[in-house]
Amino acid sequence: MYDRIYNFSAGPATMPELVLEEIRDEMMNYRGSGMCVMEMSHRSQVFQGIADQAEQDLRDLMGIPANYKVLFIQGGATLQFSMIPMNLLHPGRVADYIVTGNWSKKAYKEAKKFGDIRLLASSEDRNFSYIPDVSDLPVSDNADYVYICENETIHGTTYQTLPNTKGHVLVSDQSSMFLSKPCSVADYGMIYAGVQKNVGPAGMVIAILREDLIRSDLDDTLPIYMNYKTHADSGSMYNTPNCWCIYVCGKVFQYLKKLGGLAEMHRLNQEKAAILYEFLDNSKLFHGTVEPQFRSLMNVPFVTGSKELDAEVIAATKAAGFDNLKGHKSVGGLRASIYNAMPKAGVEALVDFLKKFELEHR
Amino acid sequence: MYDRIYNFSAGPATMPELVLEEIRDEMMNYRGSGMCVMEMSHRSQVFQGIADQAEQDLRDLMGIPANYKVLFIQGGATLQFSMIPMNLLHPGRVADYIVTGNWSKKAYKEAKKFGDIRLLASSEDRNFSYIPDVSDLPVSDNADYVYICENETIHGTTYQTLPNTKGHVLVSDQSSMFLSKPCSVADYGMIYAGVQKNVGPAGMVIAILREDLIRSDLDDTLPIYMNYKTHADSGSMYNTPNCWCIYVCGKVFQYLKKLGGLAEMHRLNQEKAAILYEFLDNSKLFHGTVEPQFRSLMNVPFVTGSKELDAEVIAATKAAGFDNLKGHKSVGGLRASIYNAMPKAGVEALVDFLKKFELEHR
Repeated sequence: MYDRIYNFSAGPATMPELVLEEIRDEMMNYRGSGMCVMEMSHRSQVFQGIADQAEQDLRDLMGIPANYKVLFIQGGATLQFSMIPMNLLHPGRVADYIVTGNWSKKAYKEAKKFGDIRLLASSEDRNFSYIPDVSDLPVSDNADYVYICENETIHGTTYQTLPNTKGHVLVSDQSSMFLSKPCSVADYGMIYAGVQKNVGPAGMVIAILREDLIRSDLDDTLPIYMNYKTHADSGSMYNTPNCWCIYVCGKVFQYLKKLGGLAEMHRLNQEKAAILYEFLDNSKLFHGTVEPQFRSLMNVPFVTGSKELDAEVIAATKAAGFDNLKGHKSVGGLRASIYNAMPKAGVEALVDFLKKFELEHR
Repeated sequence: MYDRIYNFSAGPATMPELVLEEIRDEMMNYRGSGMCVMEMSHRSQVFQGIADQAEQDLRDLMGIPANYKVLFIQGGATLQFSMIPMNLLHPGRVADYIVTGNWSKKAYKEAKKFGDIRLLASSEDRNFSYIPDVSDLPVSDNADYVYICENETIHGTTYQTLPNTKGHVLVSDQSSMFLSKPCSVADYGMIYAGVQKNVGPAGMVIAILREDLIRSDLDDTLPIYMNYKTHADSGSMYNTPNCWCIYVCGKVFQYLKKLGGLAEMHRLNQEKAAILYEFLDNSKLFHGTVEPQFRSLMNVPFVTGSKELDAEVIAATKAAGFDNLKGHKSVGGLRASIYNAMPKAGVEALVDFLKKFELEHR
């Protein structure tokens, strides 16, 4: 109807068509307010209602306990890479990082600017194609937290079980898997996600932070925007938030609730991923780059084994109306990001295309 | 046609209807890309084209010299309050701040966390109702910069002439006057503006920064997102920017170019403001709170002199289909923000209403 394509971008990424239609229809006058959401004062009753509803819907979807704050913060995961150690790491103590791909490595590298950061485990020895055994790692006794990236967007790996932190706080970057399956929030001290992968437009991180981790002794030293307390004390409205992003994310939360919540979303995601992985497991031309038990439901990297042929496939997919299938340079080949909003029909169409390509190129 | 109201919000604020219509029409499929701009990879050719065009149009509008970088940064003016001293203030040197209202005061207070910050001048003695004489201030010899907020949103004051910085770098917060009139960029070391007042939706600052002020010695210490070098070296795409905001701002830049540029915009803004100020100067009931020669073209605070009557006017304006006319608590009364996108008809309608109210309440 709109001549839209299947967009396999790793982020910003495809969004539900129904959500986009609602946004379009509310553009000139949001529900009788006489204005577009982009024009609303963040201090107005109508916008506060949008933000409150978004937070409540997220709390409902994830079952967020009352002792966790939900924060809407600008600056992406990149700002969190700094904010996390600047806020959670106390003088004289350490933080343990598990490095399983580009994103946890960036977080680890950035954190080292701000204190004693330890490398607890890494899967770099095999180009981040697996998740290390995290059941009994030597977590530092004086660790303020253990840090993971729960789904590595570039390498296409995901944790099947959370690390045994031996009683220490777990901090997880869920950017590329946020809301893709049910989540037991109480197992974490902090979860955060850049929303531009699995939820809405770029420009905002949602941080879910246990209240007792928010410190009161940083007001005089931290940049005010980088203090979690600033955001927690003001309902994320110390300054003007990314109002549009809150509005769009709220619509996606509503969409997920109507769909049946995260359990149903998970079922659909498993179904979609199975179609692609089954094809890869049976293909003579294409193969996945991740050890099977650590495969992501969201990001699926695969290669032919030949750089030239990879490039040919990518060009062919583009010509056939699929987009953003080029893999990241650190893995090469192709990557299909099949986030929540990618319909099953999109994955099926891609697999059909790849099958045809394989037949023609063997 | 859309039953839109006149929205006098101080920000986020009213936007050109034509721009909103274009955005609505491109929502489901941006110019044959098969996707919405919210869904586009920031690394894609189509989005890079949008960002490049936006930057070029802004450069054309303002006549930005080639030795200035244009940066798109999240976190609002609040993050800039910290980033400016963290980047521009060298060890052993100072920065001079001129405090003319809430926003420059916040910037001054925040900067003090990061070095030796001096109060160069202030208009707090008369509740920030004027701009101090800045023609011959005792600028510190070892000042790395002089800081101003060029238009104070809350107090409704604006500089008629820039401070004599005696050769030192001038840093200006232009948030609530950005693109409201021609600007000689070369007079500044840095100009920045939160775009949610006079341009687009919230969630982005545009910083225009002279290249020689960008330092290379901060990589190991500053949070990576807070280093101007990070943004300058990557064309504001070190990490995912607020793509939607760049897209919308780009549309507003195009709109301003078609209108005739900043000189024509200035003429229209003067015309609009004159209607309101002329009314206030002749009213027996309402009066402006700013000394005439420092009046802002953008934010017009006014009072009746009675808190009860102020509240009555605000309620009456709301009932009559005007919105967000309540003044900030530090000034009280009413405030009409009449940014670029507020049509002359909106100001005329407001004045007609206030005249009628005055007649009925004398």
